[in-house]
Amino acid sequence: MTMSEIKVLSSGGVTGTIGFVAGAARGGIKTEGNDVGLIACERHFARAAAVFTRNQVKAAPVLVSARHAAGEFVAGIVFSAGNANCCTGERGTENARRMCELAAAKIGCRPHEILVCSTGIIGHQLPMDKVEDGISKIQLTRGDETDQAVARASMTTDTVPKHFAAQREIDGKMVTVGGQAKGVGMIGPDMAPLAAQSTWHATMLAFLTTDAQVEKTRLQSTLERIVERTFNSVTVDGDTSTNDSCFLLAGGQSGVEINDANQMEFDELLESVCVELAKKVARDGEGATKLVTIEVAGAATESDAKKIALTIANSPLVKTAIFGRDPNWGRLAMAAGRAGVVFDAGKLSIQLGDVEVFRNGEPTNFDLHAAEAAMQPPDLTIKVLMGEGEASWRAWTCDFSYDYVKINAEYHT
Amino acid sequence: MTMSEIKVLSSGGVTGTIGFVAGAARGGIKTEGNDVGLIACERHFARAAAVFTRNQVKAAPVLVSARHAAGEFVAGIVFSAGNANCCTGERGTENARRMCELAAAKIGCRPHEILVCSTGIIGHQLPMDKVEDGISKIQLTRGDETDQAVARASMTTDTVPKHFAAQREIDGKMVTVGGQAKGVGMIGPDMAPLAAQSTWHATMLAFLTTDAQVEKTRLQSTLERIVERTFNSVTVDGDTSTNDSCFLLAGGQSGVEINDANQMEFDELLESVCVELAKKVARDGEGATKLVTIEVAGAATESDAKKIALTIANSPLVKTAIFGRDPNWGRLAMAAGRAGVVFDAGKLSIQLGDVEVFRNGEPTNFDLHAAEAAMQPPDLTIKVLMGEGEASWRAWTCDFSYDYVKINAEYHT
Repeated sequence: MTMSEIKVLSSGGVTGTIGFVAGAARGGIKTEGNDVGLIACERHFARAAAVFTRNQVKAAPVLVSARHAAGEFVAGIVFSAGNANCCTGERGTENARRMCELAAAKIGCRPHEILVCSTGIIGHQLPMDKVEDGISKIQLTRGDETDQAVARASMTTDTVPKHFAAQREIDGKMVTVGGQAKGVGMIGPDMAPLAAQSTWHATMLAFLTTDAQVEKTRLQSTLERIVERTFNSVTVDGDTSTNDSCFLLAGGQSGVEINDANQMEFDELLESVCVELAKKVARDGEGATKLVTIEVAGAATESDAKKIALTIANSPLVKTAIFGRDPNWGRLAMAAGRAGVVFDAGKLSIQLGDVEVFRNGEPTNFDLHAAEAAMQPPDLTIKVLMGEGEASWRAWTCDFSYDYVKINAEYHT
Repeated sequence: MTMSEIKVLSSGGVTGTIGFVAGAARGGIKTEGNDVGLIACERHFARAAAVFTRNQVKAAPVLVSARHAAGEFVAGIVFSAGNANCCTGERGTENARRMCELAAAKIGCRPHEILVCSTGIIGHQLPMDKVEDGISKIQLTRGDETDQAVARASMTTDTVPKHFAAQREIDGKMVTVGGQAKGVGMIGPDMAPLAAQSTWHATMLAFLTTDAQVEKTRLQSTLERIVERTFNSVTVDGDTSTNDSCFLLAGGQSGVEINDANQMEFDELLESVCVELAKKVARDGEGATKLVTIEVAGAATESDAKKIALTIANSPLVKTAIFGRDPNWGRLAMAAGRAGVVFDAGKLSIQLGDVEVFRNGEPTNFDLHAAEAAMQPPDLTIKVLMGEGEASWRAWTCDFSYDYVKINAEYHT
């Protein structure tokens, strides 16, 4: 079995999956465009898996969704953009619950069968009249235009909608995973299930649908495993949001049940969708001019490799050098060294694209023009080889530009 | 006894302390200005304490200094600026040793009685002809002009020399601590003694002198304790350098021996100098328009308070908001929440200057104009009250401006 058996849907998202419909409308929370959305399982009894931000300050919808995701079935996901409903106290919780009621009334299920998300500014109450007005106008449909509209409705400072779908045959039948994501700033997701956390709050939102049939415990562990390798390995600024949420709804309409024998095939399919969405998030990072993939290999453990990859991916000095297209491998060595992982710097090697600039702790006699040329492409891969073992990890980031400062110094309270 | 008994020397630095001389000269490593310096104890047998970067990639001079600092006595410190002598292999180590030999010949001691530091670009061999030429021209003197010249010689992208000295009476005699520091980028020091570390590499350099008489073990533990509260709590970009080093030389000429009874008085004196130098580093941070003090109080443990203070101090979203003079307390709550510390967000309170904007997990009814006014001063204090216990910590940082990006995207390899 090879990854090449996975077929990318030419255009697709959450309704690329059989059995799901969605819609978006404008309530008026954002200054322009649609700002509320709804994704629904037509059968009303999808299995749901969810992970939420590990941030100790958790938004009201995170708390409400965590409770609802624990139930037997979930019928849909409602979301709003422009206001995070975070640090809003009891009234915030009531408003998140009210969003579930509105969505439930719309699709004909019970309020606790709805998952809810919000994204936007922290510390302001949701304008519920606008939210209600928006949700009342939503029309549930399917297709490419719907997928794009629903992905677009969740955007805040995002510049492009992010959606993707892929399918593969499992046990002789076609299984699809569709998804959408939003988030370009306050991006350093670190999501885990609520039960594994001590307290709560998230702004990368990712919604995934599949027509595979998956038992609830299996669905949750699958999502956790794949999120760790994808969304939890993407960063723009390392600032883990109070609202980050990722939901996976499994409707089962394909008739293919996931079991120990075909789990890996399903993992690969789900990961292919999450990787694409994670890369879209990094590529659209606030002010980004480049998508940067950091590959760390030869580490003693996966945990070590992940720490090193994310420390490099979050280093302001690395990110500004990449913006300046400077083959400044010294900053890469510095960032690897400050990751809190013990290693022998004398075994460290670094490649910029295909150019090896550092080998076993010393600079190679590389051609500066080749190294400079390696820094030019809009998609850049940096490889760090530790020489300590066989574990590897991949992280995605973007460069740090004047526009990042502009966007975040001018986005006023 | 109060801190007010500490008297700041109107202008002073490493030679503000009785028994120390210093000098700087130009070897031609930097494009302009003096770039080598020497600080010497006239008696040639100062006690030395040293801490170095915890970065796993450690520069050659760090490795050499660690060995020399372990000896019985130290006679002086030699440094160069413009080239970090890092990732330079065996030849780098030989060059760092050669710098010690040159300095030892100059002041008449043995090479292993010299501590050595370099700062600048990573991955290039030191131009030893220039280093030798520079060191040969150094004249050892004392006084304000010397202090300023020696502090200036250690600068790279620093815009101002950073030096400070203070004194107080201990056991009826005057004791002085003088110091200098350099560093404005790749600043997120995390220094510890070599013995406590598994491997090695630093670019905040801080040199301290005192005329107190302090037994070696006591001197080392004193430096570690004070560095943790000062230099290890300052950040510009969180990027812990490969070369960070902090040395404290105690010459003993005051005739005052530090013991259990007067240790606290000496701690206060040393801390007063280190705090001033740390603040000067943050204030001169690359592209900085503000010095920002983050005070975290009411935490369960000091370790918790430090993690929260430094996570806020390193948050790109917090730092860009401060550059934009935006009272964006939501980003402060977010950053506190992602510090890896478990706490109850419902007890969290935040003050911008004197304006309480967030109390017990909810925004106060604060006056937006007052909050905006609180963001204007060049020296800004942000207080975060956890409501979890009695531990507190202080960190110093600066804002994140267009000029940070400019300086670091244009500083080419």
